[in-house]
Amino acid sequence: MDRMNEYAGKLETLDIAGMRGEDFLLTWDKTDDELAAVFTVADALRSLRERNLSARVFDSGLGVSIFRDNSTRTRFSFASACNLLGLAVQDLDEGKSQISHGETLRETANMISFMADVIGIRDDMYIGKGHAYQKEVSDAVKDGHERGILEQRPMVLNLQCDIDHPTQTLADLHHLIRHFGGVDRLRGKKVAMSWAYSPSYGKPLSVPQGVIGLFTRFGMDVTLAYPDGYEVMSSVEMTARENAARSGGSFRRTHSMEEAFAGADIVYPKSWAPFDAMQKRTELYGRGDAEGIRLLEKELLGHNASHRDWECTEEKMRTTRDGNALYLHCLPADISGVSCAAGEVAASVFDRYRVPLYRQASCKPYVIAAMIFLSKVTDPSEALRNLEKRGAARNRL
Amino acid sequence: MDRMNEYAGKLETLDIAGMRGEDFLLTWDKTDDELAAVFTVADALRSLRERNLSARVFDSGLGVSIFRDNSTRTRFSFASACNLLGLAVQDLDEGKSQISHGETLRETANMISFMADVIGIRDDMYIGKGHAYQKEVSDAVKDGHERGILEQRPMVLNLQCDIDHPTQTLADLHHLIRHFGGVDRLRGKKVAMSWAYSPSYGKPLSVPQGVIGLFTRFGMDVTLAYPDGYEVMSSVEMTARENAARSGGSFRRTHSMEEAFAGADIVYPKSWAPFDAMQKRTELYGRGDAEGIRLLEKELLGHNASHRDWECTEEKMRTTRDGNALYLHCLPADISGVSCAAGEVAASVFDRYRVPLYRQASCKPYVIAAMIFLSKVTDPSEALRNLEKRGAARNRL
Amino acid sequence: MDRMNEYAGKLETLDIAGMRGEDFLLTWDKTDDELAAVFTVADALRSLRERNLSARVFDSGLGVSIFRDNSTRTRFSFASACNLLGLAVQDLDEGKSQISHGETLRETANMISFMADVIGIRDDMYIGKGHAYQKEVSDAVKDGHERGILEQRPMVLNLQCDIDHPTQTLADLHHLIRHFGGVDRLRGKKVAMSWAYSPSYGKPLSVPQGVIGLFTRFGMDVTLAYPDGYEVMSSVEMTARENAARSGGSFRRTHSMEEAFAGADIVYPKSWAPFDAMQKRTELYGRGDAEGIRLLEKELLGHNASHRDWECTEEKMRTTRDGNALYLHCLPADISGVSCAAGEVAASVFDRYRVPLYRQASCKPYVIAAMIFLSKVTDPSEALRNLEKRGAARNRL
Repeated sequence: MDRMNEYAGKLETLDIAGMRGEDFLLTWDKTDDELAAVFTVADALRSLRERNLSARVFDSGLGVSIFRDNSTRTRFSFASACNLLGLAVQDLDEGKSQISHGETLRETANMISFMADVIGIRDDMYIGKGHAYQKEVSDAVKDGHERGILEQRPMVLNLQCDIDHPTQTLADLHHLIRHFGGVDRLRGKKVAMSWAYSPSYGKPLSVPQGVIGLFTRFGMDVTLAYPDGYEVMSSVEMTARENAARSGGSFRRTHSMEEAFAGADIVYPKSWAPFDAMQKRTELYGRGDAEGIRLLEKELLGHNASHRDWECTEEKMRTTRDGNALYLHCLPADISGVSCAAGEVAASVFDRYRVPLYRQASCKPYVIAAMIFLSKVTDPSEALRNLEKRGAARNRL
Repeated sequence: MDRMNEYAGKLETLDIAGMRGEDFLLTWDKTDDELAAVFTVADALRSLRERNLSARVFDSGLGVSIFRDNSTRTRFSFASACNLLGLAVQDLDEGKSQISHGETLRETANMISFMADVIGIRDDMYIGKGHAYQKEVSDAVKDGHERGILEQRPMVLNLQCDIDHPTQTLADLHHLIRHFGGVDRLRGKKVAMSWAYSPSYGKPLSVPQGVIGLFTRFGMDVTLAYPDGYEVMSSVEMTARENAARSGGSFRRTHSMEEAFAGADIVYPKSWAPFDAMQKRTELYGRGDAEGIRLLEKELLGHNASHRDWECTEEKMRTTRDGNALYLHCLPADISGVSCAAGEVAASVFDRYRVPLYRQASCKPYVIAAMIFLSKVTDPSEALRNLEKRGAARNRL
Repeated sequence: MDRMNEYAGKLETLDIAGMRGEDFLLTWDKTDDELAAVFTVADALRSLRERNLSARVFDSGLGVSIFRDNSTRTRFSFASACNLLGLAVQDLDEGKSQISHGETLRETANMISFMADVIGIRDDMYIGKGHAYQKEVSDAVKDGHERGILEQRPMVLNLQCDIDHPTQTLADLHHLIRHFGGVDRLRGKKVAMSWAYSPSYGKPLSVPQGVIGLFTRFGMDVTLAYPDGYEVMSSVEMTARENAARSGGSFRRTHSMEEAFAGADIVYPKSWAPFDAMQKRTELYGRGDAEGIRLLEKELLGHNASHRDWECTEEKMRTTRDGNALYLHCLPADISGVSCAAGEVAASVFDRYRVPLYRQASCKPYVIAAMIFLSKVTDPSEALRNLEKRGAARNRL
């Protein structure tokens, strides 16, 4: 009870009026207060679940999901968040739908939204497309609501786009806050967001971009390490630099994984594809140039292969702060000798961090639920107090 | 509150006892009072949603869906209606099931119905099959209930069959009532239900059939226009003629789109396949005659192609009442220059009517919910009053 | 009300403390009291549904399903049970997920379980794998709960494995109890669990194994009949023998369907694959030996074909007790002349027992719901009394 009062009280000190009814697309669209509110509500919802108390705020309503790429974790995280709050999930499976037969997006967006409270979208395949798609859906339902087509306006929630992956990076950050004992403890922490080798090609850039765009807001010293040629979006680097300047942290780039790891408190070694190559691929797909795509893929796999030494090994881990940096990954990882011959991380390193990694992942459903809660619940702090007061066990009459 | 009392009061004046526990398969199986009840409850449910009040009447229960054809809109409309009332959707995906491995329909119908309140079925592909399939499911669960297999009898709801498409046409009609300001305003309105050119072939007949079988009941002057050879089921034409005679409206056929459009208040230009050809196709499929199907398809596309002038153009629209008829479509439309080179409607016409079209579509979830409500809720008018009295916001504690 | 008091009272006489929070994987892991509790709660839940009273105990929570084989009945039974209690179903579709791309099971198990109350798994394809997989999932989520990854530990529910099929056999047994008028009436009943011919190959062994491992606990005389070579797991036969000795029933084997049927009160003729062959197949699949699999399939179909006389005919039925044994099947059956040229059962026999067969199937959702109820509801007997006291109609306000 006291803990819940604390969370509700904390919310009251934050300026979160701007979240009401709004989308969650990019972390840098949100104020510091708004991000603090996400963590506070996520903590509150987890506290209820720890005690098996209901966090149900909706008596009905739909969470619509659109996954334009395969997904287990994000699918279940979204479904879990919706269920926690009382929303039913309805998936738009484009394979089963008529979207491919000439429906315009604007039309589809309205047709799926008659009872939707939230539309969660994962669209991370093509540079320049994912975020644009989410914006287009958002504009369509906002317009539909204003014109009397939709009685309610659903929020659009970015479950991963070509630019950012806010549900992942806020879960990552929440994990850090919990691990280090408070957001204030993050100040001055050294983060190595590093490229790592993978035998596959074309992994999205949203995680490294999301991490440098978010972690730099909390006074951390963030290093982005990657082999020459594996650049990320320059506009996000700009955001990272500005954030660092404002927060008293720092942002720098290096082409040495070793340099990034040396003395790091936190390491996040993860493969991604070069921004320029992804842009080229998007164009090739746009032109339907199969031969060009095949050649690009071959070229990229060749580049990857020349960086096999970018692996998170025990040796590299020993160079981190007290040889004991916190290892992060968004999962699934390419584990050398386990899921592939050679990959992002040595099996012994991954195994040692398995429990913290799963805890990191466990933050995601609560973060998603908090995003929905803060957009759709009329008075969030009052709602938290009422949930506690109600004190309803999920499974008792 | 006053509005809700009005809806509940209106229901009390209608003889709807016959809807209790019953299916909704064809609009002409239902009395005028029963259709009026659908519109009344649909209005009431929308009024609740406009004010973000809960319309949940079921605390548990399943809405089973069977889609024997692709669907986005109807799938989401059904899911939305179920969710609005508190039912969870469980889809019978025949691809994943053992139906193709020799299960009899009677068996399957019972096996999926143990907790079902409603079974929504879309089966519009084969003439002579869709409605029959729905009847068979209905008979199976009725029998299962009587024999103590099912504790409750689920209603069967026609989400489109070979004969009628009641959730579409009642949504269309509800849109007209809302647009023209009352059901009484429909009397004397001139409707052009017209065939239109499409580059695809084999579109269902359920919309034109459903429209002429329904709109003729409201004193409207309904013209069915189509090129020679594109006849619809003669039994439905008979129903239309009888309805028109009873309601003081009229029903006639023409082979000129221009004639149908001249002075029309409402136009519904939409492609469909000739009834005879669809019957032939069903036989060919039944015999597994792939070559026959290929030849028929070629022949039909050839026929279609000779009627490219059956397009809803600006020029034709100018000939309607004040050049301003209400344009209807069940969506998605084949829009010339947008979703195909040449199609059912000119892009500028479609664009001009986009908002009303989406409003038309927005009627469907409420109409479906009303159908379920009237079949499964013990005392519909009392339930409406109680929903208002409860006044529960969907997302407040 | 009185009936519900009786059920609640009955539960209070049973030692069911060991079910709390636990999995349901094999019936022989459970005590007689625990099985009695399943039947009692299943009866209570059915009584509520007969009177259209809500049995909802969860206000939120997920039932995760993993079907590693096609399924209509079990899928709907699980979904129905979850819905009855208030859980939403979220299916892990391995086709859509990244499981095939190197995720470890332990990782996936945790990632899908953040809000799960129950994980229902069907995995019956490979000897030595199905039960092991379920145990692995169970261990993973137990560990995840202990390590603070999962706030709640979901139960694992066996929806069919390579060894047992508890939701089926307990539904079968519940059907017998209801049919014969009480569990005490089962004592001394003669059961023929018999192999039967099918034109398909490789059907799971879980039903015959589950039946002999369960029915022998109730003082019945169980005969397992099969052609030489169609042995089941010897460890389960051992369990059956021990059970029979303890319960005062009997267990024996024969290679004559006629012998098993003679004088039987209950017959359960059903095809299955030989244990040894299934073990061999598992190895072949493990080695990816497509040619070996093809040869084994050919060999097995050949064996099957030499036992076409193992059909449940009218003639054989006449030899049962009063020519009137109760015919059981888990469905779908291979019906001669209906779903195949020659199969497990004559069409006239199957038709005569259609209604009892569907009643048999109707027991399954209640049995599954009872398993979940007894694992996850804090005080089951109090909960039953409260459900009755609440007396809430599912669809009235």
